[in-house]
Amino acid sequence: MKTQIIKLLFTLLFTFTLTFGYSRISVNQDRLEQRIFDLAKFGLQDNGETERVAFSDADLEAHQWVVNELTNMGLETHTDFAGNIVGTRAGTKKDKKPIVFGSHIDRVPNGGNYDGCVGSMAALEVIQTLNENNIKTKHPFQVIIFSNEEGGVMGSRAIAGHLGKSALGVKNSTGYTMGEGIMRLGGDTTRIKDVERKEGDVAAFLELHIEQGGILDTEQVDIGVVEGIVGLKWWDVEFTGFANHAGTTPMNSRQDALLAAAKFIVAVNEITNSFEGAQVGTVGRIKAEPGAPNVIPGKVTASLEIRDLSSEVIQKVFEAIKTKTEEIAASSNVKVEFLPLDTTSDPAIMDSDFQKIIAENAQSLGLSYKFMPSGAGHDAQDMAIIAPTAMIFVPSKGGISHSPKEFTSAKDMANGANVLLKSLISLDKKLD
Amino acid sequence: MKTQIIKLLFTLLFTFTLTFGYSRISVNQDRLEQRIFDLAKFGLQDNGETERVAFSDADLEAHQWVVNELTNMGLETHTDFAGNIVGTRAGTKKDKKPIVFGSHIDRVPNGGNYDGCVGSMAALEVIQTLNENNIKTKHPFQVIIFSNEEGGVMGSRAIAGHLGKSALGVKNSTGYTMGEGIMRLGGDTTRIKDVERKEGDVAAFLELHIEQGGILDTEQVDIGVVEGIVGLKWWDVEFTGFANHAGTTPMNSRQDALLAAAKFIVAVNEITNSFEGAQVGTVGRIKAEPGAPNVIPGKVTASLEIRDLSSEVIQKVFEAIKTKTEEIAASSNVKVEFLPLDTTSDPAIMDSDFQKIIAENAQSLGLSYKFMPSGAGHDAQDMAIIAPTAMIFVPSKGGISHSPKEFTSAKDMANGANVLLKSLISLDKKLD
Repeated sequence: MKTQIIKLLFTLLFTFTLTFGYSRISVNQDRLEQRIFDLAKFGLQDNGETERVAFSDADLEAHQWVVNELTNMGLETHTDFAGNIVGTRAGTKKDKKPIVFGSHIDRVPNGGNYDGCVGSMAALEVIQTLNENNIKTKHPFQVIIFSNEEGGVMGSRAIAGHLGKSALGVKNSTGYTMGEGIMRLGGDTTRIKDVERKEGDVAAFLELHIEQGGILDTEQVDIGVVEGIVGLKWWDVEFTGFANHAGTTPMNSRQDALLAAAKFIVAVNEITNSFEGAQVGTVGRIKAEPGAPNVIPGKVTASLEIRDLSSEVIQKVFEAIKTKTEEIAASSNVKVEFLPLDTTSDPAIMDSDFQKIIAENAQSLGLSYKFMPSGAGHDAQDMAIIAPTAMIFVPSKGGISHSPKEFTSAKDMANGANVLLKSLISLDKKLD
Repeated sequence: MKTQIIKLLFTLLFTFTLTFGYSRISVNQDRLEQRIFDLAKFGLQDNGETERVAFSDADLEAHQWVVNELTNMGLETHTDFAGNIVGTRAGTKKDKKPIVFGSHIDRVPNGGNYDGCVGSMAALEVIQTLNENNIKTKHPFQVIIFSNEEGGVMGSRAIAGHLGKSALGVKNSTGYTMGEGIMRLGGDTTRIKDVERKEGDVAAFLELHIEQGGILDTEQVDIGVVEGIVGLKWWDVEFTGFANHAGTTPMNSRQDALLAAAKFIVAVNEITNSFEGAQVGTVGRIKAEPGAPNVIPGKVTASLEIRDLSSEVIQKVFEAIKTKTEEIAASSNVKVEFLPLDTTSDPAIMDSDFQKIIAENAQSLGLSYKFMPSGAGHDAQDMAIIAPTAMIFVPSKGGISHSPKEFTSAKDMANGANVLLKSLISLDKKLD
C-alpha cells in the first residue's frame, strides 16, 4: 500500500512537473540585484556615483565582465563588428532563428544604475535560471548587449542596417568618435555591414527596461506592456537679430534674438498642449550670443524636440510651431530658421501578439499591468525594423531617469525578469 | 599814408588775435585719425582686427606708447598706483587744481578701434594743439588714460575711492586678476589708496567718447551733450525646476525651468516698455542645465540688467519684474531667486553749467548738438563723484559699438576734439 502511494505520488509529481513545471520557475531576485550592484562598480567614482559613458575605460571593463559572465554560463559569446556583445544558448531544433533579448550597459553622463542595466542583467539572470532548471528551448536564445545606446542606439542601428556612415565621426563625451569607440570595444568599422540582419533573421526580440517615467510608480502598476516607442524629431532653431549695447540701444530699436526665442519657447509649450493626445514638445538647449548681461543677444540657437507615436502628429505640431514662430520673428525684427537635425527616429509599433503574451504572463504571475507607449527611445525600436518586437517596463521610483537618483526595487526588477523569462518561453513554444 | 595804413592793420590784427585768437585754433583732423590708426596697431591680429583687453601684452605696449607721446609733448607723465597714465601740463597760476580730461585705451574682446580710443587720442591732440599755439592755461591741464575701463571702470574707481578690495581678485579674459593686471601696468596694489582724490582735488573733468548708440547718427547731429550717465543694476535670476526625460515626462507633469525663464524674458520686455521714460531692461545671458535637447531643463540662470538715469525708476521696474516673475514661477511649479550682482552703479548727473559750456562751444563752431543721456557706463561716472564732470559724444556709425564694425569718421572725431578743446579753454577761464 505504502509503495503504491509513493508510486502514485511520484507519477503525479512527474505529470505536474511536465505540465506546470515551467510556470513555477523563477529568477533569483537577490542575484539579479547583486549583478546590478556588481555592474555599478565599473566606473565607480569617489563620490559613490558611477560614470560609464560608452567607449570609456569603465565601459570596456564592464563589456569584458559581461562577456565572461555569459561565457561562464556556457553561451557561445563574442563581440560583433559593431561592438555589441552577442551570446547564444543553443536551441534543440535545427535551423530555428534565434529569439533575441537584451539591452545596454552604457550610461549617460551623470546617469543612474538602472536604465539599460536592468534589462541587461535580467537577460543574464534568465539564462542562468534556464540553465539551473535544465530548460531546453527549440529556438536558440540569444542575449545581445547593444553598444552605445545612449549615444544614438548605435549597436542596434548597425544590426538593423540603419547606422549612417557620418555617425561614425560623431564624438561623445569621452572624446572618442563612434568609429574609434567601436574599435576600442573590439569591433571593426571596416566590417560593420556584416552585423546587419534582415527581416526573418531574428524570430523575436524582447527588451526589458525601466519605464524612465512616473506612470507605473504613480499608479502602483507592476508591469508596463509597451504599445510602441514614440518617434522623435530634433531641430536647431536659429534666431538672428543684432547684438548691440544694452545701455545705448533704446527698447524700440532692438533686434533681440533672445526675446524672440523666449516667445518661441512659450509657443512650443502652448501649441504642444493645444493638440489632443500624448505628444510632447521640448526646448532643452539654448545658447545666446555673445552672452553678456550688458549686450542684447544677436544670435540664439535653441533646440526643438517633438515626440509622438504618430509621425503625422509630430509633423502637424511642428508645422503649427513653425508658423507661429515665423510670426514671432517677423514682429520682433529677427530672422528665424528651422534646421532639422540628424537625430530623428520613426515611431516603432510593438508586435500586438507579443503584447498579449506579455500581458498574459504578467497576469499568470499575479502582477498588475498596463498598456502604455514608451516616450523614450530604445534599442527595441531599431530591432522592430527587422523583427517582431516587444518591450516590458518596470517602475522607475518617482519617474526619475538619467540621474544618480534613478531607482527600481529588487522586487520590481525580479517581476520584470520573470515576465521576460515566461514570455520568452511562451514565444519559444508559439513561434515556428 | 601807406605806413599809417600798415600800422592800423597791425593794430587791428593784434587786437583781433587777442580777442578771437583762441576761437580760431583747431585740432589737426588728419593727425587725430592717424593716432587712432597707430593705436590700433597694438594688438593687431592676422585677420586685420585688433584685440587689446586690459592687462594683455598689447595693452601694456599701447600704455607705454601713450606715456612716450605725452612725455614727448612735454608733460610730466607717470603711471599711478592703479595703472592709470597721468600726464600734467603745468598751469600759469599757482595752487590751481587741475582740469582733467581723458578716457581709456583698453578694449572689450572683439571690440572696435573707436570707443575709449577717440577720447584718449583727442586728449593727446588737444595738448599738442595747445602746445603748437603756445596757449597757456591758468589751471594745470591733466590727461588721464584710465586703466581697465571695460573690466569695471577700474582706474577711475580707484581715483574716486570706490574700488572694492574684492575687485582685485576678479580675472578678466587675459587670465590675470585686476590686482595682477595693475602690477603689470606698473601700478602697485599695496599703495592703491594713494591714488584716491577727494572732492576739490580736481577742478573739472571732461570726457569725449563715441555715443555707442545710433541716435546722433540717425538724427544727423554732430555733438551729444550728455545730461547724465544712467545707473545700472545686475541680477542673476535662478529658476529651479526638475530635470527630467523629455520623452517620458508628460507635458502636465513637467517642472520646466526654461519655460518659466522664457516667460520671465517676455515679462522683462513688456514691463520695461510699460513705464514712461527711457529705461532699458535686458536679458543678455542664459544658461539652461543640463542643456540637452532631450532633457527638460531643471535649472536656468538668466541675467537681468536694468538701466535708467533715476535709481528710483530702476527699483520700480525691478519690483514689477520680480512680482510678475514670482507669479510665473508659482504657476510653473518652479522656484525663482533674484541674486543681486556686484556690478551696480548709481546714475551720475553731469554738471549743468558744464553742459551749457559744451553746447555753446558746439554752436560757436557751427555744429549741431543734442542733450541726451548716456546709456553706457564711463569713467566720467566715477569722476563725477569727486569733481564737476561733463561728457561730449560724437556719432557712432549705425549705432554699432563693442564690435570690429564700430566706426566714427575723422570729421566727427575732430568736431568732438574741437568742442573738447574749446570747452577746456572756457572752463579754464571760468573756473576759479
